[in-house]
Amino acid sequence: MFVPRQIIEDKLKKILAEDLGQGDVTVSAVIPSNIIAEAEVTAKETGIVAGIHEAEILCEMSNLKVINKITDGEKIKNRQVIMRISGDAQTLLSVERTLLNLLSRMSGIATKTKMLTEKLEKANIKTRIASTRKSAPGLLYFDKKATFIGGADPHRLHLDDMILIKDNHIAVIGDVEEAIKKAKSKASFTKKIEVEVTDIEDAIKAAKAGADIVMLDNFSPKQAKDAVETLRQSGFANVLVEISGGITSENLLDYASSDVDIISMGGLTHSVKALDISLEIMKN
Amino acid sequence: MFVPRQIIEDKLKKILAEDLGQGDVTVSAVIPSNIIAEAEVTAKETGIVAGIHEAEILCEMSNLKVINKITDGEKIKNRQVIMRISGDAQTLLSVERTLLNLLSRMSGIATKTKMLTEKLEKANIKTRIASTRKSAPGLLYFDKKATFIGGADPHRLHLDDMILIKDNHIAVIGDVEEAIKKAKSKASFTKKIEVEVTDIEDAIKAAKAGADIVMLDNFSPKQAKDAVETLRQSGFANVLVEISGGITSENLLDYASSDVDIISMGGLTHSVKALDISLEIMKN
Amino acid sequence: MFVPRQIIEDKLKKILAEDLGQGDVTVSAVIPSNIIAEAEVTAKETGIVAGIHEAEILCEMSNLKVINKITDGEKIKNRQVIMRISGDAQTLLSVERTLLNLLSRMSGIATKTKMLTEKLEKANIKTRIASTRKSAPGLLYFDKKATFIGGADPHRLHLDDMILIKDNHIAVIGDVEEAIKKAKSKASFTKKIEVEVTDIEDAIKAAKAGADIVMLDNFSPKQAKDAVETLRQSGFANVLVEISGGITSENLLDYASSDVDIISMGGLTHSVKALDISLEIMKN
Amino acid sequence: MFVPRQIIEDKLKKILAEDLGQGDVTVSAVIPSNIIAEAEVTAKETGIVAGIHEAEILCEMSNLKVINKITDGEKIKNRQVIMRISGDAQTLLSVERTLLNLLSRMSGIATKTKMLTEKLEKANIKTRIASTRKSAPGLLYFDKKATFIGGADPHRLHLDDMILIKDNHIAVIGDVEEAIKKAKSKASFTKKIEVEVTDIEDAIKAAKAGADIVMLDNFSPKQAKDAVETLRQSGFANVLVEISGGITSENLLDYASSDVDIISMGGLTHSVKALDISLEIMKN
Amino acid sequence: MFVPRQIIEDKLKKILAEDLGQGDVTVSAVIPSNIIAEAEVTAKETGIVAGIHEAEILCEMSNLKVINKITDGEKIKNRQVIMRISGDAQTLLSVERTLLNLLSRMSGIATKTKMLTEKLEKANIKTRIASTRKSAPGLLYFDKKATFIGGADPHRLHLDDMILIKDNHIAVIGDVEEAIKKAKSKASFTKKIEVEVTDIEDAIKAAKAGADIVMLDNFSPKQAKDAVETLRQSGFANVLVEISGGITSENLLDYASSDVDIISMGGLTHSVKALDISLEIMKN
Amino acid sequence: MFVPRQIIEDKLKKILAEDLGQGDVTVSAVIPSNIIAEAEVTAKETGIVAGIHEAEILCEMSNLKVINKITDGEKIKNRQVIMRISGDAQTLLSVERTLLNLLSRMSGIATKTKMLTEKLEKANIKTRIASTRKSAPGLLYFDKKATFIGGADPHRLHLDDMILIKDNHIAVIGDVEEAIKKAKSKASFTKKIEVEVTDIEDAIKAAKAGADIVMLDNFSPKQAKDAVETLRQSGFANVLVEISGGITSENLLDYASSDVDIISMGGLTHSVKALDISLEIMKN
Repeated sequence: MFVPRQIIEDKLKKILAEDLGQGDVTVSAVIPSNIIAEAEVTAKETGIVAGIHEAEILCEMSNLKVINKITDGEKIKNRQVIMRISGDAQTLLSVERTLLNLLSRMSGIATKTKMLTEKLEKANIKTRIASTRKSAPGLLYFDKKATFIGGADPHRLHLDDMILIKDNHIAVIGDVEEAIKKAKSKASFTKKIEVEVTDIEDAIKAAKAGADIVMLDNFSPKQAKDAVETLRQSGFANVLVEISGGITSENLLDYASSDVDIISMGGLTHSVKALDISLEIMKN
Repeated sequence: MFVPRQIIEDKLKKILAEDLGQGDVTVSAVIPSNIIAEAEVTAKETGIVAGIHEAEILCEMSNLKVINKITDGEKIKNRQVIMRISGDAQTLLSVERTLLNLLSRMSGIATKTKMLTEKLEKANIKTRIASTRKSAPGLLYFDKKATFIGGADPHRLHLDDMILIKDNHIAVIGDVEEAIKKAKSKASFTKKIEVEVTDIEDAIKAAKAGADIVMLDNFSPKQAKDAVETLRQSGFANVLVEISGGITSENLLDYASSDVDIISMGGLTHSVKALDISLEIMKN
Repeated sequence: MFVPRQIIEDKLKKILAEDLGQGDVTVSAVIPSNIIAEAEVTAKETGIVAGIHEAEILCEMSNLKVINKITDGEKIKNRQVIMRISGDAQTLLSVERTLLNLLSRMSGIATKTKMLTEKLEKANIKTRIASTRKSAPGLLYFDKKATFIGGADPHRLHLDDMILIKDNHIAVIGDVEEAIKKAKSKASFTKKIEVEVTDIEDAIKAAKAGADIVMLDNFSPKQAKDAVETLRQSGFANVLVEISGGITSENLLDYASSDVDIISMGGLTHSVKALDISLEIMKN
Repeated sequence: MFVPRQIIEDKLKKILAEDLGQGDVTVSAVIPSNIIAEAEVTAKETGIVAGIHEAEILCEMSNLKVINKITDGEKIKNRQVIMRISGDAQTLLSVERTLLNLLSRMSGIATKTKMLTEKLEKANIKTRIASTRKSAPGLLYFDKKATFIGGADPHRLHLDDMILIKDNHIAVIGDVEEAIKKAKSKASFTKKIEVEVTDIEDAIKAAKAGADIVMLDNFSPKQAKDAVETLRQSGFANVLVEISGGITSENLLDYASSDVDIISMGGLTHSVKALDISLEIMKN
Repeated sequence: MFVPRQIIEDKLKKILAEDLGQGDVTVSAVIPSNIIAEAEVTAKETGIVAGIHEAEILCEMSNLKVINKITDGEKIKNRQVIMRISGDAQTLLSVERTLLNLLSRMSGIATKTKMLTEKLEKANIKTRIASTRKSAPGLLYFDKKATFIGGADPHRLHLDDMILIKDNHIAVIGDVEEAIKKAKSKASFTKKIEVEVTDIEDAIKAAKAGADIVMLDNFSPKQAKDAVETLRQSGFANVLVEISGGITSENLLDYASSDVDIISMGGLTHSVKALDISLEIMKN
Repeated sequence: MFVPRQIIEDKLKKILAEDLGQGDVTVSAVIPSNIIAEAEVTAKETGIVAGIHEAEILCEMSNLKVINKITDGEKIKNRQVIMRISGDAQTLLSVERTLLNLLSRMSGIATKTKMLTEKLEKANIKTRIASTRKSAPGLLYFDKKATFIGGADPHRLHLDDMILIKDNHIAVIGDVEEAIKKAKSKASFTKKIEVEVTDIEDAIKAAKAGADIVMLDNFSPKQAKDAVETLRQSGFANVLVEISGGITSENLLDYASSDVDIISMGGLTHSVKALDISLEIMKN
């Protein structure tokens, strides 16, 4: 998800502009112009930091100097300084909340994601965790990137990068095989085809019809294990198996033990606990 | 926060456009054009619905007909249909995720907010709960509105609608009274002045200097109660008292019993649990 | 009204783009590229300068160097140089009109405003002059800022920063007290409540119902004086009184002598006499 | 200046959005949703109306119905109703100021322009009055259109539609004839070439070099008369003569009597007296 | 590439706005308002029509009625009417060129593409023709869609939908296998991996390393045939083979006979012959 | 067509953003961050280069350094290096295609245009070649500029810079003379008036009615010669004659020999053969 800096600047400018409205009346009334201030951005709890790249761009486009900073993906501890910034005091105070909202949301997402990917790693399980398109509205780029920093697969970035035939598509078409057949004949060769299924029979049908990936929707760990085995035994060793629905931190290892390739979790991005991060102006 | 519809349409168009990218390749490959489909948007858990107004605008600007819908703020139960939509199948399926992301985030925020405001109501406490500017980046409008539907006070809508002198401003100025004096002489008469304080002495100073609102930062319930009493006894009955920092669902009633006027909680918007809502195409 | 520079740049870019269209055909045909020119921006009449900050940003975003400049709010005389600019001749000539339109409108507004605020100052009257939302369409930011530089209170920056119940709202609701009651129960504690009234009785009603500010609409100076006195005698010393409608440079002191707190004048921004300012390329 | 409606809608949406900010908090708190209101837009003084077309588009894009309206360019009297609107009360009240700012600025411009064009008409003088690019920043479209409605020639719409070589261009090039020569060889045949001159000699030079239009800069009426005569006698009957600088309502006829073709006046758009127009919700 | 209509409207609005500038001065001067005109859009040569969907949206967003129209992808003959439109004459004439530019470019692309895809079809060859990202700047959506209508595979829609490792990437990394190894470990499972190779050895290396698609860069038909055979014999029957570089209408069948899966041709979109299409107002 | 750099940056940012989507997944997976790469942009065939100015701005806004470059309008040969760029490898590879699409389209246009303008030059014919508004949708600025670099007259830049009365306007009005009369009375004096005619009679009528330019639509060279002669003999030596329709590279000299002033050719921009230009990362 590499994006040249000027495109990220535009995303950040829109976020900043919403928060500013017609201007920061507090700064305007209270803070003199042309004062240089220095600030520390500090973690208030343990986690994985994300959003440093974006925060740095936000600072630099605001003519604030980033004196030092840690790197996206680093583990941070309570009271750890993650960025040190210097520049015009009015600007710094006007940008503070936007900077913190970015960092604390992205770090919150990365922290939760990392907790889950580490759980699998420690259990020596190669199943990948993937995020979904269930982001906060309009924040696909930031939310996906944060899950990536946390070790997850970003999955589809939006609706144009893979064929994913879900229950609602099938409800319109009426038939899994028909849907896949259409997809194979009309979609670009550059796109993989994934199909959501609700039972093992449809999983086999989908694989036969040429799906690259089969998504097991709301299977129990046991059902998932059966589905994977049946697919493997039926000669579809190359078909990736994704499972989705009902997976939580608690039952993650159960699901992972079913040997699926990917576990996707909407909760990584739709239900986020922000990491507590604050900014302090340093008195000198 | 009434906004004429065409301005909301623009916000929604940007959210939708991010998710679409160059187009929905699944719909394009699999779903025939000119088919009418009907869909039900259904709650999968109990909560307070929010975002219906925005979801309706999203449908209508996409030429999808909203057949019926419930009202923002209503209590919903698991399996309850909250909207019924009809229209072009390709469009409906392309818009589905944007619509659900909106509804599930806003309803999640409203549900949590309502749980807290009801807790106070049941305890016959008149303290108001307020949201903060700690929203998801760029989603101030939607997040604030959802807290409002949940019964909270939206607080500042952005940086231009009240003077709020925080610790970082004072760190630059060096002195609470000096900061308030500046604010009173330079700010518009249309703006209230709020000051964040960290002890009772500063609370009194702020009130004396003319603050309309005093924000107690990270006070314990006991300290807050003392602060309120001291202020009232010192003749500042008209000064509103807000408390912020460390308030959770668990200790909310403790804090509220301190008789503060407002309890503001960043977690209403920065740490959101989406309400589970789904959309099903109806087979006919 | 402090706004980080990149947001002002966007406002200026839109203004510039309208004037450019597909490009400056004169410069393109007549002026060689890669020539450095120097220019003086000069006042052609006495006044108060405003827009220097914006003009400087416009220059710098166009890679033109501001060699020196005076400060917003300074009194300027005919023939006084207010900015000296250097840079690419093609760019300088293409940007000239946008720069002058900004400076001459903002300075015109500041000059008129200052003339009025000084009149009160000299008469030792503490009544503030306020601008309104009657700006040129889309120029609220620039027009308000110019009145602020001229010494006026910017009043509401847009529709989201104070409750202002006007005659048309009351025409819908049917009753002043009912309107205020609604406002007090539904509006955020961060917002002041102002109410427009047309007679003394309603002024008292509004104050009793809890208005923070009462706006006397089209009162004579005498009526205004009576209203202020009645309010003060009725125990509403803290209620601010604003007067609006029919106030001109000529009758300003009459109105001010009524002891109102604020006099708001739409004419500061809706009827503007641009200050005559020109730009001359310096022959060398 | 015919522009398809959807492009004007975008201009209006930006103006409206600035005024709204995060929403109309008064309407939100005080006005119930789903109430239909009717309003009259009424002139409070005599003048020429302009902006009706734009106001109508603003209403219609806001789902407000324009029941009836008069036509751009009509003479209006004090108390005359110029539009009658009906629709959702919340929307109507939120849009009111934007609508009035548009109408009162454009009508103010048209009224002043018409006063001047009529003065010439009554004196049976065929000289045209033209507006300039000295508009309010970013309002070229609206300001030019208003002068057109008032009977003026809109002159250049922006920098791409005519070659206009001014003193500052010549200051860079060093020579009028050289500048025109460059223009004739490099500019498109679709563009006229106008040259600003400061004395009769340069006027003749410019005409000889092929200028289509000669602009007399800061000539007295007498000097202008001489210039016109000299040009005519020198065989340049087809060269249009424009005069600019120092022309006011008072000396207009003097200047016009010099027989120039065009008198351009920056004051039509840079120094505007808004026409007093108000909107009243009709009580029923 | 299905995109909800409102997103296409925004693309079209930007195109239209560029052509309009400050307005259509011809229509404004010459065409009366409120006249209804009817027009026929007619092919002036044989080809495949594309852009009808977009042209229809352009009309409808301009309040022009599309009376009838043929369907994207249809074969059209000289003099055939492809759309019949009715509506406001001023609008129709202002929109004419934008509508024709869209239709004639998209139809030109579709016509050329169809000529090539039919050539393969008639020769009973299943090789697919694919377009590339070598579109006119900013026209990826329209250009890709036109090739799709002409029967080609749209290939990557932009840089986010497939991993395509090209010579320049390898020049930075230094090694094909290393590049693929990185891609396999870091890219999402949702993305296919394609690798550009310049000889058979690298093609085998790429397939072994796990490439889903191998792109033969500037191979002769003979070399391509060898490469395909070697890959098939080495057990990589599932690896798709794309060829790119130097393929023209003339040598297309030679290349296709090499049994590659995909032939991609930048010329489909970077070198376009517009189809001659005109619009005639119908005299009545 | 001089445009200040920041306005071109915005055009380029939109083009780049479309190609990037959510980000360059190949660069992200394969290329390490913080590597400096150097690249050569090289012509693969003979032609005229155009777009260097825009390519340079694209590089600089992306923080890529342009080490050296040739100048717009230069003749380039196969294998000639036209730009050398250095900077962050990820950025360089992400921007590559946008840069090449710009250069190859603009150079293709300039090359074709130059071939035609040189043909006239060599034949000592002073007739100018002009481009039209038949550009790729939305690319008027870039396409026109490329024709200008190739030696053509850019003609109208959009719909606001000249009155051009075409057959469709006349179809609505019903009469050439009526149309011109309207144009003369209603259009600005800054605009030339051009009229499209289909026979010699109408050409004379148009000239008599005051057209500045007469456009002969689909005349044969012989008919054009007659028309020019008739116009000259009828005393309209100052009326420019443009011819349009059916002119190709082959018959260009025939048409030019008719002594028309301008030959306009839609094909310069609607049917473009991109110049083959590539970018190579330099191995070191």
